[in-house]
Amino acid sequence: MALIVQKYGGTSVGSIDRIRNVAARMIRTRDEGHQVVAVVSAMSGVTDGLIKMAREISSNPSERELDVLLATGEQQSIALVTMALQELGVDAVSITGRQAGIHTTGSHTRGRILNMNPALMHQFLNAGKTLVVAGFQGVTPDGMIHTLGRGGSDLTAIAVAASLKADVCQILTDVDGVYTCDPRIVKNARKLPEISYDEMLEMASSGSKVMQSRSVEFAKKFGVVFEVRSSLNDNPGTLVLEEHPHMENAVIRGVSIERSQARVTITGIPDTPGMSGRILGALAEAEINLDMIISNIAQHDGFARHSFTMPSCDLGKAQAALKPVLASLAPDAKIETEGGIAKLSAVGTGMRSHSGVAAIMFQALGAAGINIGMISTSEIKIAVTVDETQIEDAARAVHDAFGLDKMSA
Amino acid sequence: MALIVQKYGGTSVGSIDRIRNVAARMIRTRDEGHQVVAVVSAMSGVTDGLIKMAREISSNPSERELDVLLATGEQQSIALVTMALQELGVDAVSITGRQAGIHTTGSHTRGRILNMNPALMHQFLNAGKTLVVAGFQGVTPDGMIHTLGRGGSDLTAIAVAASLKADVCQILTDVDGVYTCDPRIVKNARKLPEISYDEMLEMASSGSKVMQSRSVEFAKKFGVVFEVRSSLNDNPGTLVLEEHPHMENAVIRGVSIERSQARVTITGIPDTPGMSGRILGALAEAEINLDMIISNIAQHDGFARHSFTMPSCDLGKAQAALKPVLASLAPDAKIETEGGIAKLSAVGTGMRSHSGVAAIMFQALGAAGINIGMISTSEIKIAVTVDETQIEDAARAVHDAFGLDKMSA
Repeated sequence: MALIVQKYGGTSVGSIDRIRNVAARMIRTRDEGHQVVAVVSAMSGVTDGLIKMAREISSNPSERELDVLLATGEQQSIALVTMALQELGVDAVSITGRQAGIHTTGSHTRGRILNMNPALMHQFLNAGKTLVVAGFQGVTPDGMIHTLGRGGSDLTAIAVAASLKADVCQILTDVDGVYTCDPRIVKNARKLPEISYDEMLEMASSGSKVMQSRSVEFAKKFGVVFEVRSSLNDNPGTLVLEEHPHMENAVIRGVSIERSQARVTITGIPDTPGMSGRILGALAEAEINLDMIISNIAQHDGFARHSFTMPSCDLGKAQAALKPVLASLAPDAKIETEGGIAKLSAVGTGMRSHSGVAAIMFQALGAAGINIGMISTSEIKIAVTVDETQIEDAARAVHDAFGLDKMSA
Repeated sequence: MALIVQKYGGTSVGSIDRIRNVAARMIRTRDEGHQVVAVVSAMSGVTDGLIKMAREISSNPSERELDVLLATGEQQSIALVTMALQELGVDAVSITGRQAGIHTTGSHTRGRILNMNPALMHQFLNAGKTLVVAGFQGVTPDGMIHTLGRGGSDLTAIAVAASLKADVCQILTDVDGVYTCDPRIVKNARKLPEISYDEMLEMASSGSKVMQSRSVEFAKKFGVVFEVRSSLNDNPGTLVLEEHPHMENAVIRGVSIERSQARVTITGIPDTPGMSGRILGALAEAEINLDMIISNIAQHDGFARHSFTMPSCDLGKAQAALKPVLASLAPDAKIETEGGIAKLSAVGTGMRSHSGVAAIMFQALGAAGINIGMISTSEIKIAVTVDETQIEDAARAVHDAFGLDKMSA
């Protein structure tokens, strides 16, 4: 008998019929002889409806009160899923974030998990009950309701699996697993049987929005093996786990793309200590997530230049944040911007032991007639920017060049 | 500076505009120099919508899970009302039933308040905050969400007022106060400035559904003076408090009516000990609330008879519950039923020190050509049944006979 944690997202519990399907699926797992703990999100549409009401009242509603408001969505889901299980004869019980012992820290609406106290969950499991736990929520050290922000239910599932020492954690979602590339773009993209945490993290931060990075980081930190699989069928999905010797021996695990990026280049920055920190700090304060950052230290003229990419939609905000800091620090600096670009990343731990990976990638792009803009690399990733109109061709060219459609030995 | 608890029902917070009105009203009270604690219900319609979903899943949903589901309604209200206050510049904070320290006992969906721990509320009040507390909910000794059943938000308001030693507790509702009789029936009915707990209890149990009896009982037990007043205007309402010497010196405080009653008479019951208890016990097990109960002990024929009234809608259930118990205990007993009757009650603590009250009432009814059916009395109430078609005439006749349209000295 295994202890299995299953996470169901908002679409999976989006109607009474779908809630019944979730209950039926949990019972199938139970009938195979396992103990089941479900972590569920709010029914799709509920959270948006609550946010809409809050915004009607205030353009800038209190984040503490948003937490109180939004946490009700998951609380409703756990009650309804539990009722559906009970209706099918299962001894089930709902568990709020507080009851699951999810203790949090950080700002309201963006909580982080501080620690877990699974005492009540253990008590119910020992009594043979099936558990339905509210995703996305926990409680602060002083007892206030706290939500975990985007991807919070995935994070809850991983944390619950860690605290209960579950045998399996299944993230049931609307995709079949993690693919070598988006199958809508690359027709012969292949579902991966396994991927390492590090690769998953690079894929997540490179536009493959299967899961938020922090959930993967949490799983890596606590050694929680989890599986991304479809809630619509029983196909095996993709296992995400620590890199191991028997893993499929690929140089590149997958290719991910990110559209609607913009590049900002600042030239004419005096080469004095702390200057870059203050410029990048101004962007961080404006809550702009920079992606690729390329800095050239002082040229022969004594000035430095910085280039970075960000989502196009942040461009206006970035210019507004940069103007005052440049006016005071570097009155001669110039800002150039370029929209309409996209980012392509090739990710794989095999890169660590293989040389020449970048060369293969650049040659493939060249042969397809695609110009490369910026380049940035990590230990297991090579990312380039290309013109947005060419991103799909670029993805196909790189996918082919590394033979990702074929299982490697 | 007074500490004022204000209870707002589901209609008062039934839309975003109404929530804004609640916030504005709280601020008016605050601007008069008082500290304000609001207790709010779920937005009207929300609870019914949740129950509807639960019933789609199960014809008999778990009461524990119903509590988890329904408690979200009030949680949403407190967040939205708090946001509305904050939008108007007030330092406000929402408080769930758990955070208000409302500890409960009893079955799920029908919780009773066991004790209160107002520590967190005091902490926020000492910090100068305006509090918005969720009505209708508390938490069991083992930390489970618990709702308080019908009238639960009134009960919360009284309990919060008791635990905070509030100066005033205002029950803001859709009526202006407690009237000498229903003004839709008796045109010259008068709003009472004061009414004693005991009178209010008799009025509540006699069809004047301003408040549930248990909230009034709780207030009486803890000496919470409360005021029933309109949420739609600023008129003074009716103060409910312990009887005191300066209270308006009325023999009868008010007249209340209850329609759609039925009478059940059982004849031919052997006069053996314990028989009545078993018959009435069968009705109690079927959760039928008997109202007037008249038992004649053994007649000359050696048989007893019982008559009682109940809501007409319970008649079928009562017959079903009685049949088996009578078949085994009193095979010769006969059940007679009569529908289409109504009950009129005259209530007043003045009755304790005045004789002849019943005579005035019966004469007034006789003069109006109204036949009296059953009669039952308590220390401060005289209740009679009449034909339902005559109940409005009866109410007017009794109201006039006691001069209830005039303030008494």
